[in-house]
Amino acid sequence: MNYPRPIEDLISSFMRLPGIGRKTAERLALYAYSNMSEDEAKQFGQNFINLKKNLHTCPICGNLTEKSTCDICSDSTRNHSQIMVVETVKDLFIMENLGQFKGVYHVLNGAIDFTNGIGVEDIRIAPLLERVKEGNISEVILACNATLQGETTSRYIKTLLEDSDCLVTRLAHGLPIGGDLSYADEMTVLKALEGRIKY
Amino acid sequence: MNYPRPIEDLISSFMRLPGIGRKTAERLALYAYSNMSEDEAKQFGQNFINLKKNLHTCPICGNLTEKSTCDICSDSTRNHSQIMVVETVKDLFIMENLGQFKGVYHVLNGAIDFTNGIGVEDIRIAPLLERVKEGNISEVILACNATLQGETTSRYIKTLLEDSDCLVTRLAHGLPIGGDLSYADEMTVLKALEGRIKY
Repeated sequence: MNYPRPIEDLISSFMRLPGIGRKTAERLALYAYSNMSEDEAKQFGQNFINLKKNLHTCPICGNLTEKSTCDICSDSTRNHSQIMVVETVKDLFIMENLGQFKGVYHVLNGAIDFTNGIGVEDIRIAPLLERVKEGNISEVILACNATLQGETTSRYIKTLLEDSDCLVTRLAHGLPIGGDLSYADEMTVLKALEGRIKY
Repeated sequence: MNYPRPIEDLISSFMRLPGIGRKTAERLALYAYSNMSEDEAKQFGQNFINLKKNLHTCPICGNLTEKSTCDICSDSTRNHSQIMVVETVKDLFIMENLGQFKGVYHVLNGAIDFTNGIGVEDIRIAPLLERVKEGNISEVILACNATLQGETTSRYIKTLLEDSDCLVTRLAHGLPIGGDLSYADEMTVLKALEGRIKY
């Protein structure tokens, strides 16, 4: 026996989201039915519909925006000669919320991952090269994840930029703040040792 | 810095759901943007809007339905003299999917929980008494959860039905199937011992 159609429909929709299986989807759909007002449910639905209608990626950096170019790319007070390369829009927001970086970004929309069939052409590497080739770029900061995929991507981009005259840097690896040596994996400790600085 | 409005709106909507905090909501909203087609997002939204529009509770048992009475209450092949009392629609579906019970249901929509201000009047106890008073009910099976709230509710209903001539039963407590004695809590083992049957 299945739930009534409107509930089943919503369950299927929830199951399309990552990390949400049948049981969780049932719980969420039933909760939405019992605990949300009709207006709230309508609003939720409308928000979903607006999502793809009003939003697109910035043609320069790949950030999400409702305007023709994103707020960061159109901000003249930022340093447009310094590009931080991140894998996802989420990473961009993590960096941005630190409030420290005043350059601009380049969102790759993923990382090279040959085992899952994601190659060089599948992520936004070519537009990055275009931006560097256009000139006036002094530094490219590689802020990919410290994973196999992220490292592969960083190395590949570094190789491509070897002939350009801009500085290519990457984020430091090491012990996380508040991290206990005994909890860190060997590779992290090794990187922390390699990257040690004068105290 | 916040995400663009359509993403922030969807994040707020997701955060209204139980067990979904800001981080998960961000992940889901960004996933929905990147991995769903416009049609899919529209469908998800429409499903939410339909939820409250097309669905209501069965006036007899409290189950969810799109019709005037639910499929179970309008099924003449079922035993309408046997009512199983459950706390939620979800519990009804759990029972129904066992395929064993051929009576009808009564959904309480919660359980008595004085610490959270849920009293006798807040759940569907009165309509249950009405159904019993109308007659032709031979058995009321209390299938509330084996929690303090569920037990309180069961006991309260049992007291109310003491003067009626219908049989009041409750689900058995005991070791879960496949359960190891050493993993069961003391109360469960105690109930299993109390409820032991001839082998």
